[in-house]
Amino acid sequence: MIFTSDNWAGAHPAIARALDVNAAGFAAAYGASDLDRKVEQTFNRIFDREVAVFFVGTGTAANSLALSSINRPGGVSFCHREAHVIEDECGAPEYFTHGARLVPVDGPDGKIDPEILKSEIARFPEGFVHAGQPMAITITQSTEIGTVYTAQEIAAISDIAKAKGLPLHMDGARFANGLVALGLSPAAMTADLGVDIVSFGGTKNGCWCAEALVFLDPAMGKDLPFIRKRAAQLFSKSRFIAAQFEAYFEADLWLDLATHANTMAARLQAGIKASSGARLGWEGPANETFAILTHDTARALRAQGAMFYDWNLPRSKRGLLGENETLARLVTSYATTDADVDRFIDLLA
Amino acid sequence: MIFTSDNWAGAHPAIARALDVNAAGFAAAYGASDLDRKVEQTFNRIFDREVAVFFVGTGTAANSLALSSINRPGGVSFCHREAHVIEDECGAPEYFTHGARLVPVDGPDGKIDPEILKSEIARFPEGFVHAGQPMAITITQSTEIGTVYTAQEIAAISDIAKAKGLPLHMDGARFANGLVALGLSPAAMTADLGVDIVSFGGTKNGCWCAEALVFLDPAMGKDLPFIRKRAAQLFSKSRFIAAQFEAYFEADLWLDLATHANTMAARLQAGIKASSGARLGWEGPANETFAILTHDTARALRAQGAMFYDWNLPRSKRGLLGENETLARLVTSYATTDADVDRFIDLLA
Amino acid sequence: MIFTSDNWAGAHPAIARALDVNAAGFAAAYGASDLDRKVEQTFNRIFDREVAVFFVGTGTAANSLALSSINRPGGVSFCHREAHVIEDECGAPEYFTHGARLVPVDGPDGKIDPEILKSEIARFPEGFVHAGQPMAITITQSTEIGTVYTAQEIAAISDIAKAKGLPLHMDGARFANGLVALGLSPAAMTADLGVDIVSFGGTKNGCWCAEALVFLDPAMGKDLPFIRKRAAQLFSKSRFIAAQFEAYFEADLWLDLATHANTMAARLQAGIKASSGARLGWEGPANETFAILTHDTARALRAQGAMFYDWNLPRSKRGLLGENETLARLVTSYATTDADVDRFIDLLA
Amino acid sequence: MIFTSDNWAGAHPAIARALDVNAAGFAAAYGASDLDRKVEQTFNRIFDREVAVFFVGTGTAANSLALSSINRPGGVSFCHREAHVIEDECGAPEYFTHGARLVPVDGPDGKIDPEILKSEIARFPEGFVHAGQPMAITITQSTEIGTVYTAQEIAAISDIAKAKGLPLHMDGARFANGLVALGLSPAAMTADLGVDIVSFGGTKNGCWCAEALVFLDPAMGKDLPFIRKRAAQLFSKSRFIAAQFEAYFEADLWLDLATHANTMAARLQAGIKASSGARLGWEGPANETFAILTHDTARALRAQGAMFYDWNLPRSKRGLLGENETLARLVTSYATTDADVDRFIDLLA
Repeated sequence: MIFTSDNWAGAHPAIARALDVNAAGFAAAYGASDLDRKVEQTFNRIFDREVAVFFVGTGTAANSLALSSINRPGGVSFCHREAHVIEDECGAPEYFTHGARLVPVDGPDGKIDPEILKSEIARFPEGFVHAGQPMAITITQSTEIGTVYTAQEIAAISDIAKAKGLPLHMDGARFANGLVALGLSPAAMTADLGVDIVSFGGTKNGCWCAEALVFLDPAMGKDLPFIRKRAAQLFSKSRFIAAQFEAYFEADLWLDLATHANTMAARLQAGIKASSGARLGWEGPANETFAILTHDTARALRAQGAMFYDWNLPRSKRGLLGENETLARLVTSYATTDADVDRFIDLLA
Repeated sequence: MIFTSDNWAGAHPAIARALDVNAAGFAAAYGASDLDRKVEQTFNRIFDREVAVFFVGTGTAANSLALSSINRPGGVSFCHREAHVIEDECGAPEYFTHGARLVPVDGPDGKIDPEILKSEIARFPEGFVHAGQPMAITITQSTEIGTVYTAQEIAAISDIAKAKGLPLHMDGARFANGLVALGLSPAAMTADLGVDIVSFGGTKNGCWCAEALVFLDPAMGKDLPFIRKRAAQLFSKSRFIAAQFEAYFEADLWLDLATHANTMAARLQAGIKASSGARLGWEGPANETFAILTHDTARALRAQGAMFYDWNLPRSKRGLLGENETLARLVTSYATTDADVDRFIDLLA
Repeated sequence: MIFTSDNWAGAHPAIARALDVNAAGFAAAYGASDLDRKVEQTFNRIFDREVAVFFVGTGTAANSLALSSINRPGGVSFCHREAHVIEDECGAPEYFTHGARLVPVDGPDGKIDPEILKSEIARFPEGFVHAGQPMAITITQSTEIGTVYTAQEIAAISDIAKAKGLPLHMDGARFANGLVALGLSPAAMTADLGVDIVSFGGTKNGCWCAEALVFLDPAMGKDLPFIRKRAAQLFSKSRFIAAQFEAYFEADLWLDLATHANTMAARLQAGIKASSGARLGWEGPANETFAILTHDTARALRAQGAMFYDWNLPRSKRGLLGENETLARLVTSYATTDADVDRFIDLLA
Repeated sequence: MIFTSDNWAGAHPAIARALDVNAAGFAAAYGASDLDRKVEQTFNRIFDREVAVFFVGTGTAANSLALSSINRPGGVSFCHREAHVIEDECGAPEYFTHGARLVPVDGPDGKIDPEILKSEIARFPEGFVHAGQPMAITITQSTEIGTVYTAQEIAAISDIAKAKGLPLHMDGARFANGLVALGLSPAAMTADLGVDIVSFGGTKNGCWCAEALVFLDPAMGKDLPFIRKRAAQLFSKSRFIAAQFEAYFEADLWLDLATHANTMAARLQAGIKASSGARLGWEGPANETFAILTHDTARALRAQGAMFYDWNLPRSKRGLLGENETLARLVTSYATTDADVDRFIDLLA
């Protein structure tokens, strides 16, 4: 019953096998191999257009290099207040951009509210050097709290971005979970809605270490080769990432894995709703479940082998908890089993 | 006959198997797993003391974070003029240190000359803010050109470092090749000689992607957890690196692989010396061979399937080449075979 | 009737004269002149201890270098939500620290609330690399909105800083205004309360361009010579700043100028309180007055020659304004006259 | 007999007077005053075209922001090996550009040799990420060693810059000295020859603190307002710089001052040539004289009140000195008198 995080799982057998298969033989280093090329083609196919793809090692790298690629002096990027990029990356985006700032934007359900976004952007009047200048909007799909922006919600933010001439970045550490929740194609969830850059994550969905930075307009990524190398993210044996992605996309494995993870979350959420031992903090279609438990219940569950983190509630949500209660984050993944979920629910009862 | 680089090889079967074995199951993320801990213990054993070890994804990352950890305002690090850190990392060390500079130091055989080093350091008088201030010395073992610092040579540089209060860093992208060439233990090649920090490379010697930053005095690495996370080098599924290192160290596999690579280079060098079709630029005990060929010969070899790079000769060595000659760099690795070498030598004849 | 900002005034005649007097002759460059030394001694006297003083050109430079001097990887500094350092410096502090972040802390009257500060710091648990690590607390005295921290209030924040091992920085762009408002000595307002570093401003109080970074414990400033030079803030003809400070401190000119500016603000505030044409947003003893006016009144005042800025109200204070109202910021300085103030009040009536 | 540096002089009386005259009254802050505007027009007139001008506080700032404005990831700028930007700015250009590197280029007389420049640029093949990418060429006029690029020499470097698509920057800390030495107009020495950006120095030629960054094509400076503010170089009372420049340009004062400084150098050089007590290291038409003296002579001169620095000879010039000899740098300025020079020459004899 490991619900700590989807990155506590290892690698899906098909991914592991792909690495094994590709271990022998020689291949051009630094991303120039045939396999790298082939997987880049797969990205083109998936996004239904020619894209520019750059493999990197971590989600934090993908996000940081995305912002580096559109960096401006005095630049300010707008993200949700609870976004990974501002809460969980130790200032990496600011470090890689030499101090370009992240401004938190509020909004319910872990999603940026368009009206609040507009009012935050308005705090940076054009040419007013003291405040700095807007440089990007970044959204997370699926969000840090298991919710998912609808196509309409993305479009609303994209409209604001376009009106202000700002690139729109999507942190897709859990891209696949959002995608299958919406039932959209990658293009329909991104380029068609005006998303410009995607941090495309494979690691949380069954890879060992496979992240890609995808520019839906390749011209926007023209400096990335130097940006990536300078950032120490150009892997010499790049095909070890390519091989993972090759297996990831083969026969839609990635969609199956994400569907499984989401299904496990739905099962958990249904169980918790039906249970008297806990209640849901909120519902979300992706692979994260947030349950409100008493500390006693949390202790008892852990004593039985359940593993999960207490979530650090943002101030605006503190009213959710009663006395002696905690908010448990339960993350499911490709490796979560029905049995794990059912046992957890049984223990709750 | 792939002699382009040791990073054109894939992963040794034992490494690939280790990944496969560890793919199943759950483990604490971000370097907190039992396997991470176990491999850290192995590093302690290998270096014969308690060290602080941090896994990172690339050699450039290891070097850049090493320098970040000892960064000073206006800082200047001294390296050999042909070092990877100054020639081949796209400015990453300067980027990660926010502009701390690398000053090239000359010396024969790809190795820093201690007297020249002293005179370069003397250009930065203490407290003279205009010039900046020395912050580190960094050497490469084995060097970019296949040579190896002897213990005495390292000690001579270390003495200068100690006299000036400067940390001594070793770029060990090819640490194992240098080590087996000298027949020393890791401690004897580093801590015993006053080396403070090692970029410990596994990738060029049979891993997919396994680099470690090793602080021989753990206190020097105390900020590294934040430095690494901020640099986007903290891998969530860190055990994918740990698993590679576990297999790498098992039954001294790493030493065997490096010995093989060096032996292949010695075989190449012997063959070239005996051949009338080429001559050696210089000799070196590690896994890089530099052969002087006519362009016609190079073309003919390539037509037969040999792959290698023309090396960009530094100005000081341009006298080595006659008219119509080029300097071919031939890198051998764990994956190089006797047959590859022999065929190359046969073609030369 | 120029109430736009205290930096719209030029230089006090005594300051201008000092520059003229010192223009002739030669003096050691880069801060090594006798006059530089003499003024450094004056700082020692004023702060009642040996301090380390570094002249810089702008308040933004002073703040940015203060934070640079205590920089940590993943570092987070806590400031009031409306502080200059986070609102008006175009990201300079983040730029100079390579991305160390500023976290806004709420509190009434433009001052950090100690309880909220504690809860914000608590969001960065020790050793939790994802969040980053606290590195400083910075307060503004007098504040951006004309209020002044009492000694007790500074002490309360300082206690938190000490408990957490964090340096306490004071942005004293309007140091003198705060000082005379409290009637304290510089030492009593800083070192005695645990303040570690002061951005000591002269520009807003009658100098052309004279800012100093003061380390109350000189050991904390040991890297500043290199930090300053690297930041392009070491002036070759440093005595042009020294000369300004010499005149500034002569016969307590600085205190007189600040007292005058504050007195003009008090006169304005009294006039507004007594007037039916406007009301005060809040009161503050320093040299900034915030008046709530109708847009019509503002327009009429400007038509008569009054100059002032509409202040960008933070969201939390928007309730202050009625419909068709604006918040006028009126800044007084050494150059403001009774006549300016009285004419403004008369126009209001 | 102060020959230490031209920045040991103070401010010319006309400059000091201008500050005094402008001290009273109010003016828009942050570069928006009428006087700022007027001086910007003067720059247009002087450069014979519409330029974009940005005042900054130091020459190091001007150079660093010039390079920031054309920054590229992995960027490499080419400068002379003895240039101020690489030797005397404590790494500021690298710091402000987050690690963009400076590559030293050799050449006689303190000037870049075009052929060597080409071969250095060729070390960075297009798209080769490991090496980084060229981003600028920067030359110094007059040079660090008192020589001056001829128009033809600038054109030759400019041709290389244009062929490679690289902006050409001129560090004009001693712009006026070079200008009057050549007898050219500012436009003829810059824009007409393909120079794109000028660090235009006033401080070494009679100002207290007046430097400007001039973009000969204003479009290239479009980001500078944010770059400057973020770099803490936007002065609130900007007119204190503008006032200096107004006086500087009035009735060609600047040209007169530079002519005087150069004339004093010529007088020194003539005296030294005629003297048996020293010889010239080399001749140069600007305001720096390099004399080879025995240490005994140097000591004797200093005992009589002469002040000058021993110059740190680059390795390539060490053959110039005999045993027991030193190279004295003698800098003249607007404040140097015939009497100072003649007394020095007399003492030499």
